[in-house]
Amino acid sequence: EDEVSPPTLEASDPYADDPVRHPALRINSQRPFNAEPPPELLTENYITPNPIFFTRNHLPVPSVDPDTYRLHVVGAPGGQSLSLSLDDLYKFPKHEITVTLQCAGNRRSEMSEVKEVKGLEWRTGAISTARWAGARLCDVLAQAGHRVRETEAHVCFEGLDSDPTGTAYGASIPLARAMDPEAEVLLAYEMNGQPLPRDHGFPVRVVVPGVVGARNVKWLARVSVESEESHSHWQRRDYKGFSPSVDWDTVNFDLAPSIQELPVQSAITQPRDGATVESGEVTIKGYAWSGGGRAVIRVDVSVDGGLTWQEAELEGEEQRPRKAWAWRIWQLKARVPAEQKELNIVCKAVDDSYNVQPDTVAPIWNLRGVLSNAWHRVHVRVVP
Amino acid sequence: EDEVSPPTLEASDPYADDPVRHPALRINSQRPFNAEPPPELLTENYITPNPIFFTRNHLPVPSVDPDTYRLHVVGAPGGQSLSLSLDDLYKFPKHEITVTLQCAGNRRSEMSEVKEVKGLEWRTGAISTARWAGARLCDVLAQAGHRVRETEAHVCFEGLDSDPTGTAYGASIPLARAMDPEAEVLLAYEMNGQPLPRDHGFPVRVVVPGVVGARNVKWLARVSVESEESHSHWQRRDYKGFSPSVDWDTVNFDLAPSIQELPVQSAITQPRDGATVESGEVTIKGYAWSGGGRAVIRVDVSVDGGLTWQEAELEGEEQRPRKAWAWRIWQLKARVPAEQKELNIVCKAVDDSYNVQPDTVAPIWNLRGVLSNAWHRVHVRVVP
Ligand SMILES: [Mo]
Ligand SMILES: [Mo]
Repeated sequence: EDEVSPPTLEASDPYADDPVRHPALRINSQRPFNAEPPPELLTENYITPNPIFFTRNHLPVPSVDPDTYRLHVVGAPGGQSLSLSLDDLYKFPKHEITVTLQCAGNRRSEMSEVKEVKGLEWRTGAISTARWAGARLCDVLAQAGHRVRETEAHVCFEGLDSDPTGTAYGASIPLARAMDPEAEVLLAYEMNGQPLPRDHGFPVRVVVPGVVGARNVKWLARVSVESEESHSHWQRRDYKGFSPSVDWDTVNFDLAPSIQELPVQSAITQPRDGATVESGEVTIKGYAWSGGGRAVIRVDVSVDGGLTWQEAELEGEEQRPRKAWAWRIWQLKARVPAEQKELNIVCKAVDDSYNVQPDTVAPIWNLRGVLSNAWHRVHVRVVP
Repeated sequence: EDEVSPPTLEASDPYADDPVRHPALRINSQRPFNAEPPPELLTENYITPNPIFFTRNHLPVPSVDPDTYRLHVVGAPGGQSLSLSLDDLYKFPKHEITVTLQCAGNRRSEMSEVKEVKGLEWRTGAISTARWAGARLCDVLAQAGHRVRETEAHVCFEGLDSDPTGTAYGASIPLARAMDPEAEVLLAYEMNGQPLPRDHGFPVRVVVPGVVGARNVKWLARVSVESEESHSHWQRRDYKGFSPSVDWDTVNFDLAPSIQELPVQSAITQPRDGATVESGEVTIKGYAWSGGGRAVIRVDVSVDGGLTWQEAELEGEEQRPRKAWAWRIWQLKARVPAEQKELNIVCKAVDDSYNVQPDTVAPIWNLRGVLSNAWHRVHVRVVP
């Protein structure tokens, strides 16, 4: 994530052509536009409706003419470079999968409560789920002559979104993932049965299941295979995790790997922190997800701050082994004794590698406020 | 892990033929034999010497004649079943890799401090690393006509070790992993350049990189491909994780997935808990590892119980992407002020999916005491 550009009101405002957005979204930054759905809306549906899908833009939204759009794919030595129109892309086998995308900065606001961090104040809503359809990246790369190599290589993506100097958004993923049909990396042109909305990459974006949002490049212009990761700011100087001991004077971005697969995550979307609930029974609801295709196998919920736990009911689609790309919505109806004055509700998820979320935020604090996946905590008051 | 059988001194003692063991091993159970190296020895070498490699036996050690040994591989429909002598196995391409094996019960003793659990009192030593060589399981399965299927299937293993009723040790892994050349599952006949020691499966064992020890079946007798997981006790009624709220009255083993990939892990091997160290500088040493081929990217160490952290130096072999099968030994030389009376040393590791270890043991406590991967804590006194 880059820093937030200051809003400008000049006539040459590069954000002037940005699309109109849904009024329910909670805006974290207007220019570039960054916004999340309110928690109750987020888990109302297993598939997030397009208008409220969280939006994480690094730059102004480009205006793309679908008729003249071309995707440039640099060919392998001995292969051929491709310049693909949308119609060309439609000719590849169409692949459709349900994938949850999550921003590395999701739940950053909890980290900044520990100590100041640099970044947008995402709450629990920088995560959403859609049904994506498009061509498989492996099919397109194969047509350009690419094969998995003996040595590690990377597939670099460039967007049509660019800053005033002309530098485009860019990111990369390992070639091994890109070429693995089981990894199901898509060049997506449909989101929930519709052409991609402009905020989500119209006409074509990358969807990398199980991998941090930042690699899912929108408004895709160019694909190339390189011996090194993308040299973009967002690959090399951002979207990396550090020890809590590292500050802006000591940070060395070269020493940490770029975030690819994300760790196990969950959050409570209902009730809200600070809400009042009635004694008797309270319905607690949330989401849980893990990176790398790992399925969520259990969500533990506590109403006493983590002393005792109850298992939540997992809803949503049962996930395929090794391809659990989408979240589970979970729910627990917990008994609330009349004498209870307050509840300290906590949730934590377990994935199928039996990885768990850490108990507290401070030990995973990092200067960019990414990878915030400690137990989620919500405090509510009880009225009889 | 099964329960510990009571020792028997009858003439028909099925353990009478067990091999002689290294005296440095700390014995958790004599019959079946279960023992771990002391922590300082464990991290003295990156590769654990065979005589002190942790031993986790479920049953008496079988006596196998290498000349008459045959491995039975059930053929696919239309394929052929194989009965492989050791010489037959040697004819497959020899594959050699460094792999860390860890028992699901490693560090169980910390869990039993929270609340009683059923199982052997492993400390931090139920983990070791060796150089394994053998035939790739995928090559052997292919020769028997097996291919990856559209629907999920499992490769079931049976050992030559059996209980008095003749029931053999058994376990299974998904066929997709078994058939993936990149997963490097071995039918190993060498351990650190030697034939397998009897305690480690002579003449042939399975080595499943990144996967819990229990699936690495020793004294391998039979391999088959089934539509379901192994029906063995150890696959179905053991080696699964549960919520801390589940007890022996409420446990339903059918509801939890069998442990396959293990979560991120680390422990301090030096100094020991309760030791006395001199002020000035203390050398802190340990190991870190993660399942599923995920590499350890960082180990954070604290000497103040987790308030502040320092990064340890990672030693040992740099790991290959997605194939980080072996641990890292780590070390930190920490300054100890003369006025310091004690140190609360803590370590936690981060893997390349940015999964972390949980802060405390109680919230991951489970009735079998498996998957104990909370921060490791060691308390030492300081003398000036
Ligand atoms: Mo992001
Ligand atoms: Mo084990």
